[in-house]
This record gives sequence, structure tokens and C-alpha cells, in this order.
Amino acid sequence: MNPEKIIETCKKAHEAFFSLSKTNEDKINSTLESLKLLIDRNRKKIKEINEKDIENAKVMNLKSSLIDRLLLNDKRIDGIIQSIDTVIKLKTPVGEVIEGWKLENGLNIEKVRVPIGTVGIIYESRPNVTVDAAILCLKSLNTSVLRGGKEAINSNKLLSDLIKKALHENGINSDSIGFIDETNREGVKYMLKLNQYIDVIVPRGGEGLIGFVSENATMPVIKHDKGLCHLYVDESADLEKALSISYNAKVQRPGVCNAIETLLVHENIANVFLPEFKELMDKAGVELRGCKKTLGILKDIKEAKEEDFNTEYLDLILSIKVVENLDKAIEHINTYGSHHSEAIVTENYDNAERFLDEVDASCVYVNASTRFTDGGVFGFGAEIGISTNKLHARGPVGLRELTTYKYKIRGNGQIRR
Amino acid sequence: MNPEKIIETCKKAHEAFFSLSKTNEDKINSTLESLKLLIDRNRKKIKEINEKDIENAKVMNLKSSLIDRLLLNDKRIDGIIQSIDTVIKLKTPVGEVIEGWKLENGLNIEKVRVPIGTVGIIYESRPNVTVDAAILCLKSLNTSVLRGGKEAINSNKLLSDLIKKALHENGINSDSIGFIDETNREGVKYMLKLNQYIDVIVPRGGEGLIGFVSENATMPVIKHDKGLCHLYVDESADLEKALSISYNAKVQRPGVCNAIETLLVHENIANVFLPEFKELMDKAGVELRGCKKTLGILKDIKEAKEEDFNTEYLDLILSIKVVENLDKAIEHINTYGSHHSEAIVTENYDNAERFLDEVDASCVYVNASTRFTDGGVFGFGAEIGISTNKLHARGPVGLRELTTYKYKIRGNGQIRR
Repeated sequence: MNPEKIIETCKKAHEAFFSLSKTNEDKINSTLESLKLLIDRNRKKIKEINEKDIENAKVMNLKSSLIDRLLLNDKRIDGIIQSIDTVIKLKTPVGEVIEGWKLENGLNIEKVRVPIGTVGIIYESRPNVTVDAAILCLKSLNTSVLRGGKEAINSNKLLSDLIKKALHENGINSDSIGFIDETNREGVKYMLKLNQYIDVIVPRGGEGLIGFVSENATMPVIKHDKGLCHLYVDESADLEKALSISYNAKVQRPGVCNAIETLLVHENIANVFLPEFKELMDKAGVELRGCKKTLGILKDIKEAKEEDFNTEYLDLILSIKVVENLDKAIEHINTYGSHHSEAIVTENYDNAERFLDEVDASCVYVNASTRFTDGGVFGFGAEIGISTNKLHARGPVGLRELTTYKYKIRGNGQIRR
Repeated sequence: MNPEKIIETCKKAHEAFFSLSKTNEDKINSTLESLKLLIDRNRKKIKEINEKDIENAKVMNLKSSLIDRLLLNDKRIDGIIQSIDTVIKLKTPVGEVIEGWKLENGLNIEKVRVPIGTVGIIYESRPNVTVDAAILCLKSLNTSVLRGGKEAINSNKLLSDLIKKALHENGINSDSIGFIDETNREGVKYMLKLNQYIDVIVPRGGEGLIGFVSENATMPVIKHDKGLCHLYVDESADLEKALSISYNAKVQRPGVCNAIETLLVHENIANVFLPEFKELMDKAGVELRGCKKTLGILKDIKEAKEEDFNTEYLDLILSIKVVENLDKAIEHINTYGSHHSEAIVTENYDNAERFLDEVDASCVYVNASTRFTDGGVFGFGAEIGISTNKLHARGPVGLRELTTYKYKIRGNGQIRR
């Protein structure tokens, strides 16, 4: 490990913030346009370099799903260019006057959105994150330090070089993007000590990485932690809606954080709902695991243990619990949930409102799939992750969540009495 | 130390959050009314118990200024009652719809303000903080765990008992306020590990306490760190305003965080401004320490060393630096400042706007005293401190900064395609 290089990269990104924060949006947009061109023109090189990562991954005997994540083919390169285009079209939130008022003594107070400073991004495998993270930071006038995983190191390095080139071509200090090529945990640990240079850390990856970062960071962390999400089918649920929503929330994309892991069902509707539900799940190849009461209705499934209710399967497995009432459903969710996305299916107005109020999660749904928790879907244009923090940013993290604010106060000689 | 008791108190406050968060504002207000009455009726007892703390402090040979901070006399008890009254009159921010929109698929998204959970407050000496912190947490529907300093332990204990009594009288779980009577640092350290129960920590006290809490906390910290504030007198300053504002910012209350510690003066105005300024400062008994250029103008003052520009004097001492231009002033502030409150005196429009944009601080002033940085003055009604964080809350921390948000999403069967 080369600590001096890590320090140097972070220090330079920190120093570049002052000038980047003064850059106007047009210049950022033309930089992003340059980046689009550079990526398009370097397709061949990108694919060649990416091939190296793929070969190394095969030598390392990585699972084929992991190798697939590393791959950059023409379609994925198009996707990267598309996402740059999306960010170009977004308006930077920097400069927005959040609110303003005048004091009796004549002082004008404005609360104005400003960039945070230097954002550290620690991510694993997928090389497109290099571009996604960098451009969101640029658009919000933050400098960034990127540290990707070892599997995609060659692709990441090339992409970050192209970003630096686009910055340089547009007269922006290329240190505004720092890239750390130390890919071991020691390097990350070192980076996490540099709170004099890095204002906030965004880890993107598995539970292991998130835990490591949270434990070792000396600066605030915007965590994208696990999604242990629930769907509760209330006594008064419309069964069609319940079937369609629960199917969507579990099956449409089971490996993502906003898919459900546990289904809760009111006991008065379980006898009718569960057999129909099981039929759907069987067709989709979903393994069900049920509580004792569930086993009384669905005979041929495994029992769900305490551990099941604590597990984010990220797979075609679902645990089921029959509950006495809404209170028990809310209690279960607030105990086992990861405060990410939670849904109720109900036609009862009071129950809907109570669920919305009492469930402690970033996104709470009535009669809709948890799968909608997403910066793009919410209209943020792009997201850097979904925060499971309660403070600063909660839920989808877009450009706005990458800003803070300052108070600008204009007077004409006011002093405090 | 009794770790079980600390765990128990924090756990109970955490458990009390669910029901407190559902409490309506009227009930909170009647609790605060009860508290006013209880404090008023127990004046004699409060003063007697407080006398114990004062006696202990004298035995411990505390400085008289510290002993004065501990004192609860009738005037200060009136002040506590007054501050409860202020909080009663404030509207809780909980429930405020920050924004809302409808997606094309018909989903209604509302971003709604909600309490954070359990707030830990770690504070020193002044016993009124027990009431101030507790009532701000109550009004924002957060439960809290209070841990005051050993000097005021008897007064703090009695005041927290009265708060618990007011809660009980109004049918609110009295565990909503936890009080920790372990007053050593080990107890604090233990509390800082309990991130499963405490969602955020607010330290209030000296640099030592803040540093200790930041280093050891496993949950987010809303820091009220030091205020190393500057006033820059620009070339084009109106000298009358410059004199009056700099006098106010230094002298009106030198021991607080929003008073200035360093004066920066443009070299083209220093010859005229500094001698007049010194006359004012001499009258106020302020010791001046100047850079080399300053010493060329004010002959009989001490030299300001590098260390001076890094020092929050909190006293009638001021360092002075003559700078070449606005850029140098901004550079000095962004290097030495604590990102708290910074001011420029200028009649030049561009310089004013550049200062507002480029100085990295929570509150940036043009032609006004830094002393205005205060939740009360800003119109927040009350404050729990002034945050020097960049994330979550920046500047004065009032009720609103003690909340987070959730997304409430209402649908009628939407699934993700």
C-alpha cells in the first residue's frame, strides 16, 4: 500500500473543491458532453481493457453472475452514455434558495443550497459506477474520490482517465476527480481516516463493505444498507391488488434492495389469500417459508425460523407470517425491517393512514409495490444509492441529497443589542 | 459505573419513541404547561437542591465563572419557565409536508417531516439545558436521553424528575425522557456505543467534550463545535459601519461562539481604520495582537503568531491581519475559520456577493455582526445549539433540525414494469 498516494489524491480533490464550487453549470454540461464523446470514441479501447478484467475474474474463478456485472459491451457503454445524457438534462440544485425571510431589524436571510465538498465513493465490481458517481458529484459541484473494487480496476482506471480528460479539455482542474487504485481493505481504511479532506463517504456494495466503512469512517457516511422489506396484506385488502402487488414486489427483480423478503397476512384473510398466492409463487419458482399458522394453511412448505425474518434473501425465497392485526404487522416491520421500503395492501382508510404514520421506514406504500423506491422513478433523474440513514439523506439519494446549505445574510450595518 | 443502568435507560427511551411519535401536539403542550407549574411550585426545592451543587463546586474549587453557570436563582428559574412558554408557542414541525408530487402512473408521493427517534444530549454545567433540551425533543416528538455534567448533577436530577412527573400527569410514558446520573467519561463512552437505541447525539460543551464525543460516537453527531469567526473590513467599507460592527462582534459578548476572534483588514484602508479601531478596543479593554503589517501601523501591540489565528479566545483578545485583497481574506477564512459565522463590511456589490458565495461557513454576513447567528434571532423560536456539521443540520439547530423525513406513497394497485 502507498499511503502517500492516497493522501495526495484526497488532498488534491479537497483543494480542487474551491474552484469547482465556483464553476457555472454550462461548463459542467460541456464537460459531460465531452465525456460522452470520449467514451463513444474509445469504445474499442474500453472493451479491450475490460476484457482484461474479465479474464482476471475468470482466473480468480468468480461466479458467472459477478463476471457479468464487470462486463462492458456496446449495450452497456450505450447505457453509460445515456446516463451522462440524463445528468446533463438535470438542473443542478446548487444555488437554489430553499427559503428566505427578513428579520424586523432589516436583515435578509437566505437559506441557499451549496455543494458539500469532497465526496468519497467506495464501490464494488460494476465499472459503470465510476462514471455514474463522478458525474453526479460534478453536477452538484462536489469533487470526488473514487475507489472501485479490484475486479474492475482496469476498466475503472480507464473510465476515470477519460473523465479527467473531459475535465481538462474544458478547463476544469482534473483533480476534481480523484481515483484510488489501491484495491485492498487497508487502502479503504486509510482513506476513511482522512476527514480533513473528505466530507462524506458513500459506500456502494454488499453488507460486508457497508459494515466495514461504517465502522472505520471518521466522516459522515451515507449508507446504502440492506433492504429487508415487507408487504402486509390487510384483512380488507382487494385480493387482486394483493396478488399483483406481492408478485411484483417479490418476483420482478428479486436481487434488489426494494424487493420484499417477508409477506405478512392478516389471519382473517390468510385462508383465502395464501393458497392463491402460493400458486402464483410456485409458477415463478419462489420458495416459501412460513410461520406455524402459515403451515396450517400451506401444508407442503418449510417452516420460517426466527432467522428467516432477519434475512435479506435477495433471491426467489420469501418468508410468510400470519398476524392477528395491523398492530402486530407494524410491530413486526418496525422490529425486523431495515427501514427501507414497506407496503400495505388495504381498502381500509384508517389502516392505510395508520400504516403510513406508524411504520418507521424511508418509503411507506399503500396499495403499490415496494419496487418503486428508486431515484429515477421518484423523478430525481439519477441516484447514487438509496440511503438507509435517518439523518441528512433518507431514501433515494439524488443530486439534491449531495448538497448542504448555507445562510447568506445581507444587512446594512446591523449590530446585536 | 453501572452499564446495565445506562443500557436500560437508553433502551426504554428507544422503546418509548413509538408511542411518543404518535402523540398529538395538544398533549405535548399540556405536558409543557404542567412542567411550567411544577417548576414554579418547586422553586424552593430547586433552589435548595441547587445550593448543594454550588457548595460542592466551591469545595471542588471551581472558578467563580463556572460556579455562576451552575446557579439557579429565581431569575433563572423564571428564565426556564419563559423558555418552556416559548416552546409551547412554537408549532411542531412534525407532519409538515415538505413537498409532494404525482407520478405519471398515478402514485402520489409526499415527503413528510417525522421525528428522528431518540436523541442523546451530553452537556456540561448549566442545569437549564436539562429542561431546554428535553422540551425541544418533546415538541419534535423525539424521546431523549440526557446526560449532564457532574457539577450540576443534583439540580439536573431534580429537573428531570419534574419533567418525568409532567409526562406522567399527562399520560405520556415518562421513559420518553431518560436521565443518566453516571457523570464520568466512561459512562459517556458507554452511551456512545448504543447506536441501536440512540439515533443521534448532540454534545453541548467545550472543545474537549465535543472531541471526545465525535471520536467515540457510533451514531451520527450534531456537533456544536468551536466558533473561530472573522470580520473582514474591505477596501470599500463604510468606516462607521466597520467600527460599529467590529466592536459589536468582538465586545458585546466575547465568550460566545459567534463573536469574532480575528479581524482582517484590506491594506489600502488599514492606515485609516486601524488607529480608530484601536481606540475603541482600548476603551473596551480588548487586547490586540497583530500581524507584521499591523505592527507597522499600531506600534504598541503584541505580535500575532500563527497559533493566534488558530485560537478561539472566547475572551477580550483579538488578532488582526492586514490582507492584500478579497481573495487573500477569503483564503485566510477558509483556511483558519471553523465554518461558523463570517462577515464582510463592504460597499462594493461584487465583493459582497463573492464573499457570500466563496466563504465556506454556515452563516455568511454582509454589513452585519456575526453575533446574529442564533436560533432565536433567526426565528426558530429556540435552539439546541449551532451546528458546525455540514451534513444534516448546519447553523442554528431548532425544532426542524431535530426531524428527518419519510416518503408516504399512496397508490391504487401500481406495480413496476
